[in-house]
Amino acid sequence: MSDAATRRRARGGGGAARRAARSAVSFDTAKYIERNIPNFEVLTEEVLEIIETNAETLLEEIGVNFVNNPAACARWKEAGADVQGERVHIPRGLARKLCATAPSSFTQHARNPERNVVIGGKGLVCAPVYGPPFVRDMAGGRRYATMEDFRKFVKLGYMSKWLHHSGGTVCEPTDVAVNKRHLDMLHAHMTLSDKPFMGSVTEPSRAQDSVEMCEILFGRDFVQQNTVMTSLINVNSPMTFDDVMMGALEVYARNNQACIVSPFIVGGAMAPVSVVGTLTQVLAEVLAGIAYSQLIRPGAPVIFGTFVTSIDMGSGAPTFGTPEASQILYGAGQLARRMGLPYRSGGGLCGSKLPDAQAAYETTHTLNAALLGGVNFMLHACGWLEGGLVSSFEKFVMDADQLGTLHKMAAGVVADENAQAMDAIREVGPGGHYLGCAHTQANFQDAFWKTQLFDYKPFETWDEEGARDTMTLAAERVERMLRDYQQPAIDPGANEALAGYVANKKASMPDSFT
Amino acid sequence: MSDAATRRRARGGGGAARRAARSAVSFDTAKYIERNIPNFEVLTEEVLEIIETNAETLLEEIGVNFVNNPAACARWKEAGADVQGERVHIPRGLARKLCATAPSSFTQHARNPERNVVIGGKGLVCAPVYGPPFVRDMAGGRRYATMEDFRKFVKLGYMSKWLHHSGGTVCEPTDVAVNKRHLDMLHAHMTLSDKPFMGSVTEPSRAQDSVEMCEILFGRDFVQQNTVMTSLINVNSPMTFDDVMMGALEVYARNNQACIVSPFIVGGAMAPVSVVGTLTQVLAEVLAGIAYSQLIRPGAPVIFGTFVTSIDMGSGAPTFGTPEASQILYGAGQLARRMGLPYRSGGGLCGSKLPDAQAAYETTHTLNAALLGGVNFMLHACGWLEGGLVSSFEKFVMDADQLGTLHKMAAGVVADENAQAMDAIREVGPGGHYLGCAHTQANFQDAFWKTQLFDYKPFETWDEEGARDTMTLAAERVERMLRDYQQPAIDPGANEALAGYVANKKASMPDSFT
Repeated sequence: MSDAATRRRARGGGGAARRAARSAVSFDTAKYIERNIPNFEVLTEEVLEIIETNAETLLEEIGVNFVNNPAACARWKEAGADVQGERVHIPRGLARKLCATAPSSFTQHARNPERNVVIGGKGLVCAPVYGPPFVRDMAGGRRYATMEDFRKFVKLGYMSKWLHHSGGTVCEPTDVAVNKRHLDMLHAHMTLSDKPFMGSVTEPSRAQDSVEMCEILFGRDFVQQNTVMTSLINVNSPMTFDDVMMGALEVYARNNQACIVSPFIVGGAMAPVSVVGTLTQVLAEVLAGIAYSQLIRPGAPVIFGTFVTSIDMGSGAPTFGTPEASQILYGAGQLARRMGLPYRSGGGLCGSKLPDAQAAYETTHTLNAALLGGVNFMLHACGWLEGGLVSSFEKFVMDADQLGTLHKMAAGVVADENAQAMDAIREVGPGGHYLGCAHTQANFQDAFWKTQLFDYKPFETWDEEGARDTMTLAAERVERMLRDYQQPAIDPGANEALAGYVANKKASMPDSFT
Repeated sequence: MSDAATRRRARGGGGAARRAARSAVSFDTAKYIERNIPNFEVLTEEVLEIIETNAETLLEEIGVNFVNNPAACARWKEAGADVQGERVHIPRGLARKLCATAPSSFTQHARNPERNVVIGGKGLVCAPVYGPPFVRDMAGGRRYATMEDFRKFVKLGYMSKWLHHSGGTVCEPTDVAVNKRHLDMLHAHMTLSDKPFMGSVTEPSRAQDSVEMCEILFGRDFVQQNTVMTSLINVNSPMTFDDVMMGALEVYARNNQACIVSPFIVGGAMAPVSVVGTLTQVLAEVLAGIAYSQLIRPGAPVIFGTFVTSIDMGSGAPTFGTPEASQILYGAGQLARRMGLPYRSGGGLCGSKLPDAQAAYETTHTLNAALLGGVNFMLHACGWLEGGLVSSFEKFVMDADQLGTLHKMAAGVVADENAQAMDAIREVGPGGHYLGCAHTQANFQDAFWKTQLFDYKPFETWDEEGARDTMTLAAERVERMLRDYQQPAIDPGANEALAGYVANKKASMPDSFT
């Protein structure tokens, strides 16, 4: 154990962790997914090379903009780029060379060490929906999100067995001032859950606040030597890196905290309408962004991010769960693995207004693509609705249940003597049945993935019980989970210090809602 | 063109086909899917060999039952099997050797040659739900299926762009006598659609009726020399081949018509609870069944079938769209390809009682697995509900719309100069947008898959229009399609002869409802 970790434990983190572990028994959390299956790859070697060559051409010839950020331009110039005003032309090969110092995987620590996640390699870490200004539930319909909604989502995330990460802005708490809500959000993640979480990126100063709150929770040295936050840095596609996002990235990279460098693309609007054209731009943007993170601090943990939706060219609406989005997801995964970087994409993405069949069709396409496409960090894994405008309580628990299927699928196929089941086949023989045989009795409990939500009852029973659809069953499950929620234990000193930090910060500035 | 085909055309089939082609323009039907993507494979070479070795052990040591079928047992004995009563012990390697005469792909002809499908290779042919005794729609709820429902499903199938096949028992017309309903069903497929279809398997005599009706529609010689039906022969798992199904298979094989030899397995009941154990039994059953078809007529077209669901060990209910079912689907696909046989599995399988989110989650897992798992013939591709007890009108059009995503995904990623879009990236540059650029204008119409069902409207519009969920939108689409339906043209002589055949057959026997 590092000195920092020892000190952290001595400060009470260890005791808190032990108590958390005990209390967490009733809310079983699965370890992050480790794939024992191959990745699915849609691009040939030849196509991959075309994309990589074109991305380098883009960086050198067209260049990327680092807006309102003379310091960034200076760093690029020093690194060997040709900087013209805010336009940075990166010579062929330079960005890729700079990216080489980024780790191929890293551990993000949680305050409960049992909840630590490894991001990269064959792992898949699932985190909930991020960013919606609205929430929806069956009882209350669609409405602006509040801090109370936010806390409910953090609680649901804590209690969701197949969810490994507490996420970040699970919804925008619009009833709290814009310049203060990050404090309440982080405080909620830190105290209502013991899973890992994300930091604020809406201002460099808020990223700094996030680091400082983590220093209270984990200990200062521990934070400097370990990654305790993974935060979302969107690229302003096409090819633009704004000062706010880059300012936050600078804070996090400097403090050894992880950033997802993520082109945010509605295909046909922020990138070409073709899959290969989009992948070229995605790769160029990620190369530039991650290279920049390594200029700030070589070795800073980063994730190759991709958020690409297609577009309904009739209405201009973004569309989700479409085949083109899946192709881009698969292709970007191949590009990320060739760079040796952890990969973020996927999620329970959908455009539907309700957690209905459309939502589930769209979501499941993306969940499957994310699993088979080698995604390492899946943001929006549950709760996403209406193109990301809405966090849905019912969909949160629906999707979270489905994440269990990914765990089972990823485990691959065991073929030991027990799995071969030749004795069972001999015992039962032609015309028999396996329900009572010894092999079934010995294996049935773990043989099949079990839903905690779906209905498998006989029609008559289901009908008598009210013919409930999935949304209704999910609403009942949300209510039950919130009723059963128990806060994980936390070190009283850290708890008090965090509350004090939030109160002081809030008192130090007037509310701003812009 | 073969002589038979020439004669068939001379008989008026050609004119009918041309008229059908003209009328079909308004109901655009996509060609069956040809995959330009790799297959996803979950089993290693080592595991595949274990399964293949164990399946041969099963056939030799345990054997399979051919029930009430002394002629089959005699054929097996003559072929070299050790027959003890009804139990057929097949020496190691014999079944596989017999299977070698089965074709690796075959063309199933439709009366409109533009609707012909190739089953095997990189193809994927989608056919609708098969077998439910109930139907459900929003207006009428769940009820026993009638012949009128059956006709509606055939019409919907004919008008569904992404559906290549009219299927077989799209629902059980329970208002028609059991011994006569196959006549009405075939008649509906033959006259209300011009897509390929399936024959009856519920009695050998009904298989013979199916062949005779095809001889009227296609011409007798054409039927003997070409495949015009693909029919579903379920194995009575574990390891039992009953005389009814085998009798139907004998009729079809003898007449050069295709059979799907399909173990029908609820895992844990009809096969071991493990994936590898189930695959072993599936392979053994398919080996025995297909070998038997080749004993009837070497070269008879067949399909390696697999229908496996998992089970909820608490209630005993079959479950669908689960990870274990997907693993078996992927694994069986590998086994089928190693035998060089077309492969049937997948479909829009679900256990939900309603076409809601559960139905769509479950369905989409299976549709994705079927596409990536190399399925060549996908029965139940649309309309399946409640574990196969119900054919749902709304789910039929929901799933049929989703099949479009499989077409687009299967097409793979184009990487020509236009797809590389470097000119577009140069034109737009950092901070611009692609909506108006030349490349977008030139490509947007085909760039993205388009739904004909889902809602992408702005929230406010959607809300004002009644906040309709997917089921409601689907119900409206069903109504619209049935209103717009136009019967494809058919040769008047053939039409009259078919009606006469059905009337005569029906008059020749009393109704039986058992």
